[in-house]
Amino acid sequence: MEKRKLQMMRGYMKEMAISAFIVPSNDPHFGEYIQEHFNCRTWLSGFTGSAGTLAITQTEAALWTDSRYFIQAEKELDGSGIELKKMRVAGTETIEQWIAQRLENNQSVGIDSSLFSFTEYNSLKLAFNNLNIQLCNDPFETIWTERPPLKFSPVSLLSEEYTGESVKSKHNRLKTLLNVEGQFLYIISSCDEIAWLCNIRGRDIPYNPLPLSYAAVSPEKIFLFVDSSSFTLQDKRALERDDVVIMPYDTFSSFITDYPERALRIANPDKISIRNYNSAVKGGARFQLDQIRGGAVTMLKAIKNQVEQEGFRKAMIHDGIAWVKTLRAIEEKLNSDKRVTEKDIATLFSDFRSLSPLYKGESFAPIVAFGSNAALPHYSPSSEDVLISKVGLLLMDTGGQYLCGTTDTTRTIAVGPLTYEQRRDYTLILKGMINLSKARFLKGTRGTQLDFLARGPISSSGKIYMHGTGHGIGHYLCVHEGPQSIRMEENPVAIEPGMVISNEPAVYQPGEYGIRIENVILCQKWMETESGIFNEFETLTFVPIDTNPVIRELLCDEEIKWLNKYHSMVFEKLSPALEPKEVDWLSDRCKEIN
Amino acid sequence: MEKRKLQMMRGYMKEMAISAFIVPSNDPHFGEYIQEHFNCRTWLSGFTGSAGTLAITQTEAALWTDSRYFIQAEKELDGSGIELKKMRVAGTETIEQWIAQRLENNQSVGIDSSLFSFTEYNSLKLAFNNLNIQLCNDPFETIWTERPPLKFSPVSLLSEEYTGESVKSKHNRLKTLLNVEGQFLYIISSCDEIAWLCNIRGRDIPYNPLPLSYAAVSPEKIFLFVDSSSFTLQDKRALERDDVVIMPYDTFSSFITDYPERALRIANPDKISIRNYNSAVKGGARFQLDQIRGGAVTMLKAIKNQVEQEGFRKAMIHDGIAWVKTLRAIEEKLNSDKRVTEKDIATLFSDFRSLSPLYKGESFAPIVAFGSNAALPHYSPSSEDVLISKVGLLLMDTGGQYLCGTTDTTRTIAVGPLTYEQRRDYTLILKGMINLSKARFLKGTRGTQLDFLARGPISSSGKIYMHGTGHGIGHYLCVHEGPQSIRMEENPVAIEPGMVISNEPAVYQPGEYGIRIENVILCQKWMETESGIFNEFETLTFVPIDTNPVIRELLCDEEIKWLNKYHSMVFEKLSPALEPKEVDWLSDRCKEIN
Repeated sequence: MEKRKLQMMRGYMKEMAISAFIVPSNDPHFGEYIQEHFNCRTWLSGFTGSAGTLAITQTEAALWTDSRYFIQAEKELDGSGIELKKMRVAGTETIEQWIAQRLENNQSVGIDSSLFSFTEYNSLKLAFNNLNIQLCNDPFETIWTERPPLKFSPVSLLSEEYTGESVKSKHNRLKTLLNVEGQFLYIISSCDEIAWLCNIRGRDIPYNPLPLSYAAVSPEKIFLFVDSSSFTLQDKRALERDDVVIMPYDTFSSFITDYPERALRIANPDKISIRNYNSAVKGGARFQLDQIRGGAVTMLKAIKNQVEQEGFRKAMIHDGIAWVKTLRAIEEKLNSDKRVTEKDIATLFSDFRSLSPLYKGESFAPIVAFGSNAALPHYSPSSEDVLISKVGLLLMDTGGQYLCGTTDTTRTIAVGPLTYEQRRDYTLILKGMINLSKARFLKGTRGTQLDFLARGPISSSGKIYMHGTGHGIGHYLCVHEGPQSIRMEENPVAIEPGMVISNEPAVYQPGEYGIRIENVILCQKWMETESGIFNEFETLTFVPIDTNPVIRELLCDEEIKWLNKYHSMVFEKLSPALEPKEVDWLSDRCKEIN
Repeated sequence: MEKRKLQMMRGYMKEMAISAFIVPSNDPHFGEYIQEHFNCRTWLSGFTGSAGTLAITQTEAALWTDSRYFIQAEKELDGSGIELKKMRVAGTETIEQWIAQRLENNQSVGIDSSLFSFTEYNSLKLAFNNLNIQLCNDPFETIWTERPPLKFSPVSLLSEEYTGESVKSKHNRLKTLLNVEGQFLYIISSCDEIAWLCNIRGRDIPYNPLPLSYAAVSPEKIFLFVDSSSFTLQDKRALERDDVVIMPYDTFSSFITDYPERALRIANPDKISIRNYNSAVKGGARFQLDQIRGGAVTMLKAIKNQVEQEGFRKAMIHDGIAWVKTLRAIEEKLNSDKRVTEKDIATLFSDFRSLSPLYKGESFAPIVAFGSNAALPHYSPSSEDVLISKVGLLLMDTGGQYLCGTTDTTRTIAVGPLTYEQRRDYTLILKGMINLSKARFLKGTRGTQLDFLARGPISSSGKIYMHGTGHGIGHYLCVHEGPQSIRMEENPVAIEPGMVISNEPAVYQPGEYGIRIENVILCQKWMETESGIFNEFETLTFVPIDTNPVIRELLCDEEIKWLNKYHSMVFEKLSPALEPKEVDWLSDRCKEIN
């Protein structure tokens, strides 16, 4: 099947005189999730993982993916004639090297110019200095005959009751931040930046409550390119009052070409496709890179206002209630020797979350991983279902989208007897999570500087997790957002008051177990002293942490104090909305340890 | 006086048609200390601080220096007609901005081409895009009539008993690291790189046991440019046997010009003057930047071999003995109400260190700072002497050069009653120092990631120190060396086994007190597990830490355990070489706390 598709692709390449073609897995908006319509790489290769890039020549094809997908890709690519290339494994060549070795000087490498950013295109140009890069239109429009059409679902305004700021005010703050004299056109391709700026939400993309859209911002107007039929007349009017001009989604490219040439074009080079860049500067308009780290709108969006912060706190209570109901249900089933599987638990989460009137869906694919399944950081209970038995650890990493905020929580619980090593690892992960939660730091401190607080305790046992400790979280937007992070790699962005970020140290014992404990934390100003301004974290997540596996001696008094205080807060926040039986259960789970 | 000198300088500038001239404070070897001969900026401006750059036009002059020197510079520049520019203070323009505002298009900015690195020159070119940069010879040769001549002191070989590696072996490892095919010439201007590579030491520069020298390394030979009369005949022969060719110091520039053109020139862009770069490429020779972080030799030098490590341990014992004698003497004087001043204490250190047959001098200007003097991070008891009275804290930061290693230790001791705040700050600084000492971390971890271990505890009280936590330390070489560091700013160099580094968190309460506790630590491989290779630190410094100020409740059990173990080791290492009275004293200072 895939072989026939590859042949069609090669036919297209021949016709276009292209010797190699690169098929990435993103869409023109450069977000984390894509619509089926854009899933050309899966259609062509048969590999269904979320991350992977395919390269094709007339005689060969190869797919690059990361360690999360090695086993799955091997299975799915079997017999396809596509070779698996394991990324970040010693000796694996890069896509550029692989192609360069197979082509001769001045042959052409084709790319869909709407799927490569300005930055990516320029890095390809550097890598392929003796090859041509041919910018193509989407080849799958012709060869993918049964391609699902683009889907546009209804879009709604998110009221200021939830956003805390009008579109006009955001527009003004963006202008101030850009600080450009005269006419400009700030070009945005990221659907979450646009959703934040225009106070709109949709459901065109899985897990992210976003409409497919582009935007171009002038000093006077926000030109919003969406499916205009997705709006109610009332919402359209409201947007117009805020100087938002609704335009058809597919007129974006010509709009930025035809816009008066005197307006300086500005865009984040990582988030504008080379196609749209070329459209924007056609006719000789000046272009300026957005110099703000991660992009101007991303930076504004990252700092949550008081209403958004309050919304997060509320969402966390609604989510905590669902967690308590789920955890209690799991325990009940196990205690009464009833059958319960990973998928059952994912369903429990979803069902209990749905009880909240503010709940809008999952914020990512739930991870419910029992025993050795939890040793895979991104496991999801998708293929065969797994029965939970009464031994070892169960890891659950799930989150919800609420009108007032987005949640992302991980708890690992003992469902039966544990080994000493499991208890020790559990305690060290908890220790790391607490250490980061308690941090107080000078304004300007970056995530890289704080990462070891969470990573240090487990390192002391000769173990480590290779992923980051913390990612930014959107407000009823993407569960992963920038520009801040807490990770080993340098990121020049400071952790600032108003930023919401996850705190999720972990450990993975291959073939045996995985432990991750994740709270969401909010940076707040702590105080100003003679030495400067100091910040700290407020913990937003309210879900009890299993204390059964804890080895008391491995935690110091300060850490125990934090844990007891946390549990007393969890009880205080959640108990008012719980049924008496649940209150009893929670009271037990939140009791102090000494 | 300085006005007359400025006038001479302006006369020189007029003659050369130069509109502005920049006088930095370094010499052509880009090290930390310089000979009097190179101290042109002090001669011209009257400002005696170690760091400062002067810019002069026909009508104005200004001097840029950092906060350490604001008060001193204000005093010394008074009446000179030179304006003080406070670096890193909001609103202070840069030298480049100051000059650009005063010059017209195509006017010339003069610099001594031997005092600006390739990197600095290129950054000036960028900043002065509409001005000419005129590369000059040293103008002070003519205008500074009583200039001290260059001084060359005897140079000696440091035997393999101390270095642990022959020059030939170092030469071979350098070739392997550079990994260049065919002929090359690796150009070195840093005296400490050369001293390490050639196993030589000298005393041409204060505190750093270095001969003034250049070197150029080919695949076959090391061309060493020094004052050849500084060597004994025997040492010359020994160097020749190791393929070191001794050449006159002042022939370096012509040598790298005349060297066969086919040899690729390689140099660290931060450590080659634009003059020597121009010499090296004259005639069209190819040039390649040294791609290794900090430079190839600096990287090799940073990883201490087993003999050097053992030498450090020995040096630390010799130094620890001097510390014990000094601390005891201070205490005795105070207890018997005898007069003791900051300078007296500096002399005590130097006298007691001199008892070691391996001692070669101080490794930096000793800091002995009583009370509010310690609130200045770089205080040195230079101007008025200060009597120690029996209240508050005394900070001592001193180090020695020993044939087998270099030391750098800071202790802060209570010389009388302390406030609660002093005791709390002291305990938090100690906590930070211990936290970093105990770190265990995955191979590849950078100093930036570990910095907060030391910085975090004092941050939790709303205070902070703005300097780094740790700097590399040379082996009987410079007390500050790269490429590694432990500091807030990103430094891509990993902390690797064999690297020696300081661990010195601190706090400064302006006008009141300063606290700094500094040990030297050595990175060692801890163990290899399924997760990878993990490293840890070995503490090298053996000097008791005052436990009197400690507030027990602020340290957790693990930290107390570390402290007790440390003191038991200090006692074990130092007591065998002490007199009975000193042993009693040390035993008391090393007693366990619970």
